[in-house]
Amino acid sequence: MRSLEMTILSSFHTLFIFFLFFALVNSRKLKLRTELDESLTYLWPLPSEFTSGNDTLTVDPNLSLSVSGNGGGSVIVKEAFERYKHIIFKHGSKVAGSGDYDIKQLSVTVHSDNEELQLGVDESYTLLVAKSNERSIVQGISIEANSVYGAVRALETMSQLCVFDYVTKDVQVQNAPWLINDKPRFKYRGLLLDTSRHYLPIEIIKQVIESMSYAKLNVLHWHIIDEESFPIEVPTYPNLWKGAYTKMERYTVEDAYDIVNFAKMRGINIMAEVDVPGHAESWGKGYPDLWPSPNCTEPLDVSKNFTFDVISGILSDMRKIFPFELFHLGGDEVNTDCWTSTPHVEQWLEDHNMTAKDAYQYFVLRGQEIAISQNWTPVNWEETFNTFASKLNPRTVVHNWLGPGVCPKVVAKNFRCIYSNQGVWYLDHLDVPWDEVYYADPLEDIDDPQQQELVLGGEVCMWGETADASNVQQTIWPRAAAAAERLWSGPEATSSKNTSSVVLQRLEYFRCLLTRRGVQAAPVTNFYARSPPTGPGSCYEQ
Amino acid sequence: MRSLEMTILSSFHTLFIFFLFFALVNSRKLKLRTELDESLTYLWPLPSEFTSGNDTLTVDPNLSLSVSGNGGGSVIVKEAFERYKHIIFKHGSKVAGSGDYDIKQLSVTVHSDNEELQLGVDESYTLLVAKSNERSIVQGISIEANSVYGAVRALETMSQLCVFDYVTKDVQVQNAPWLINDKPRFKYRGLLLDTSRHYLPIEIIKQVIESMSYAKLNVLHWHIIDEESFPIEVPTYPNLWKGAYTKMERYTVEDAYDIVNFAKMRGINIMAEVDVPGHAESWGKGYPDLWPSPNCTEPLDVSKNFTFDVISGILSDMRKIFPFELFHLGGDEVNTDCWTSTPHVEQWLEDHNMTAKDAYQYFVLRGQEIAISQNWTPVNWEETFNTFASKLNPRTVVHNWLGPGVCPKVVAKNFRCIYSNQGVWYLDHLDVPWDEVYYADPLEDIDDPQQQELVLGGEVCMWGETADASNVQQTIWPRAAAAAERLWSGPEATSSKNTSSVVLQRLEYFRCLLTRRGVQAAPVTNFYARSPPTGPGSCYEQ
Repeated sequence: MRSLEMTILSSFHTLFIFFLFFALVNSRKLKLRTELDESLTYLWPLPSEFTSGNDTLTVDPNLSLSVSGNGGGSVIVKEAFERYKHIIFKHGSKVAGSGDYDIKQLSVTVHSDNEELQLGVDESYTLLVAKSNERSIVQGISIEANSVYGAVRALETMSQLCVFDYVTKDVQVQNAPWLINDKPRFKYRGLLLDTSRHYLPIEIIKQVIESMSYAKLNVLHWHIIDEESFPIEVPTYPNLWKGAYTKMERYTVEDAYDIVNFAKMRGINIMAEVDVPGHAESWGKGYPDLWPSPNCTEPLDVSKNFTFDVISGILSDMRKIFPFELFHLGGDEVNTDCWTSTPHVEQWLEDHNMTAKDAYQYFVLRGQEIAISQNWTPVNWEETFNTFASKLNPRTVVHNWLGPGVCPKVVAKNFRCIYSNQGVWYLDHLDVPWDEVYYADPLEDIDDPQQQELVLGGEVCMWGETADASNVQQTIWPRAAAAAERLWSGPEATSSKNTSSVVLQRLEYFRCLLTRRGVQAAPVTNFYARSPPTGPGSCYEQ
Repeated sequence: MRSLEMTILSSFHTLFIFFLFFALVNSRKLKLRTELDESLTYLWPLPSEFTSGNDTLTVDPNLSLSVSGNGGGSVIVKEAFERYKHIIFKHGSKVAGSGDYDIKQLSVTVHSDNEELQLGVDESYTLLVAKSNERSIVQGISIEANSVYGAVRALETMSQLCVFDYVTKDVQVQNAPWLINDKPRFKYRGLLLDTSRHYLPIEIIKQVIESMSYAKLNVLHWHIIDEESFPIEVPTYPNLWKGAYTKMERYTVEDAYDIVNFAKMRGINIMAEVDVPGHAESWGKGYPDLWPSPNCTEPLDVSKNFTFDVISGILSDMRKIFPFELFHLGGDEVNTDCWTSTPHVEQWLEDHNMTAKDAYQYFVLRGQEIAISQNWTPVNWEETFNTFASKLNPRTVVHNWLGPGVCPKVVAKNFRCIYSNQGVWYLDHLDVPWDEVYYADPLEDIDDPQQQELVLGGEVCMWGETADASNVQQTIWPRAAAAAERLWSGPEATSSKNTSSVVLQRLEYFRCLLTRRGVQAAPVTNFYARSPPTGPGSCYEQ
């Protein structure tokens, strides 16, 4: 046998082992669970505190909304109520309005009329579901929140409590009365979308945002631009979006406003990213001067003021669109070979007595200065911290991705951190099972409470190399939900009584809930994420 | 080397060849097409007759609707107009209402007020798009149709003509004036959905119906029940839906009405299927008497009148829900072993002097009688025709699936036929490329015009073994669109000037149009349907 054949055989052995494993993993699915375990709490993510009872209450399809408090009259509350009413009463009733229902009214009290959506906005709420009673103060369902965004979170929880009963054909709340006091564990609960490797139409981005609200995620990290394409309009430098794949695969300024507003209505911030100096090749299609040379096109030319003028122009235009205080400046994976191999840049380095590494630091810090001058808080990928931590602006938020153990170092140096360890929270890593996503924790190896405070939260990243409009949702869900519970509920709610099998049943339930709402969430336990179901079966066990 | 290893090596060789082929297929995608070929007509399916010009006209975001004719006031027209307005004006304008637009009004004339949606309903329309002119009779866009469903088809075509221009930020119609005279080649243009192998939530079914209307498909063949699960409510036999996977994976009567009405608003009929006597094991979970015995559970027990009482009850309940004249009774893949091996059934066969094959015929014909007595037209899978053609009720519509060459035999015997040759039009066959779907033809080998008339059309089948809510849309699209053009446009529109590469570019455009409308249509040219994109790139070339 020749050695080439040996190599092939060896590859084949790997494949063979993989197929065996695959068959094994799937065989355990042959279990048949005929009905749901009624003892579990099918709320996702789990509220931080709750009590329940033994009553089953019916909900009037003509449920009315009553509001109070300074923020009660907000259109954000009203529209959220209408959205959730549509979700809850998807099935027609037997005879509309004929019944005598236990719950006829939803009362929402919002104390503050401040609708500014910023990092750390108060998302806490109290939700009480009890039978309406002439003598009781409580009428049906009541929600109390400090901000409209707390009320939006409460409505999501309420919608998960309301379940259609196929026998009575009523919507019911089981195990009432419910008293829920809830608040998020982390203030930053993110999902990255990459619209450069594949353009995602507005409609698809909205579908993603809508589904994020079901899992109480609150930041869409919009990785707008990368080396492959520059889809967004920048009025100050109108040739930049010549870097789009085609004239149809672009976002206007109005589209971006539309996305920001759509997300805000759901309590979700948009954190825009303009990744510099690497990952920016597409900029040069409109302005070739941004390239070191036409033959060496990345990173952006550090030697020209024009480069920073363009960055400043982009950030200035974006400042009008994105009100969120965080702005992501990238800074990852910078290969400086083009700088050292292009004569005029090399000369500039020499003139300024800089190594290529110095120039990388110079570029990132100058980018941070621009952002800060425009009242952004800069976020940078961890390479910037790993390479020149002491030089970073103290306001920098460091975004971990390369592996575990980074946030502990970041917070030890008093920077804030976002956790996205690629080994567990990169959604394009299709071989990471749901439970590895679930049991990852942004606070791992950080014990000091003050340092813990510096971890803003975490983010699952949906890089777009093999994810486009056709499959982005099924790649995001259900694993993003596993991270969402980690970020919202915290260990006290999810560790003690929740063995892996209990969590799995709850997650399968949430996956099916997503599909009932029209979200293309994939089976939970397939070896590769987003794989098709391996055969016929119930949504609740695939 | 031992022989087991040889076998494994041989399998590995097959795999290796497959991987090589896969790499080869994908390498041709490295072509870079920077922009669309403007000389092509990006309407899908192509209208049967059209002329265009050289004007570019702008469309007012406040486009108004003016209706006339007996059917002009229909809510079907009004709601379709609102849906398409939402689709057309997805992008916000620069300054709303500031412009002077060429097209300010859409005039719709519908001659008939008959809104009955039946097989062969008039879907023809005339669509004229020309600049509004004080002296011309034509104002903007005018649609003329005999039925509201023709108007709905015209609105779809109009929506495809309206394209957002990213420079002017207006919606424009290019190559105006347009005069389009259009009508479908076939009256039956179907898609099968299987809700037994996997339950599909109402919301997902509606997404599929909505997307069908974009491709001018007009029949959803709802394969509701199969051996794995019985998800639908039958009031007369309320235990039947105990055969659902879980209590949540069911459809109420009201859900079914809702689906029928949702589809009707889009000119789409629902053809329900109750597949007997095979593919019916799930019925026995509610009524075990329907099984020959608890150990031998398929086909339904032919010996009991109860079996036919239940069928009659189901059809009677369904007759109230589904107004479409066609009803599918299945009849495929009947393995009669349980009949000949179960003593009481065997005795019954002997008493009635029947072979198992006779009993199969008896069962199918008795089913047909029940359907006909309830004013349905029976549709049966081709095995019934292949086995006892001369006995079938002459009104039977034969549904081809096993292979090519069946419809010619069917129409030669004066039956009507629906074409679904599994080699090309089964969407769960993931290795059938788009062009094999496209170039298949329901009239292949049928030259006699009178016989051609008996071919009602065709249907692509989305069997659900490995398709659930997470991936059903990306398995359906874009290949269902290839069949949809075959069924609507006919050879005169699609053969002469349309080489495969031209069709491919048009189909890729339509796939991207679907994604812009939020439909998860997969890349067109991957070797396996619904595969992810193989790398970064434009929607228009993947």
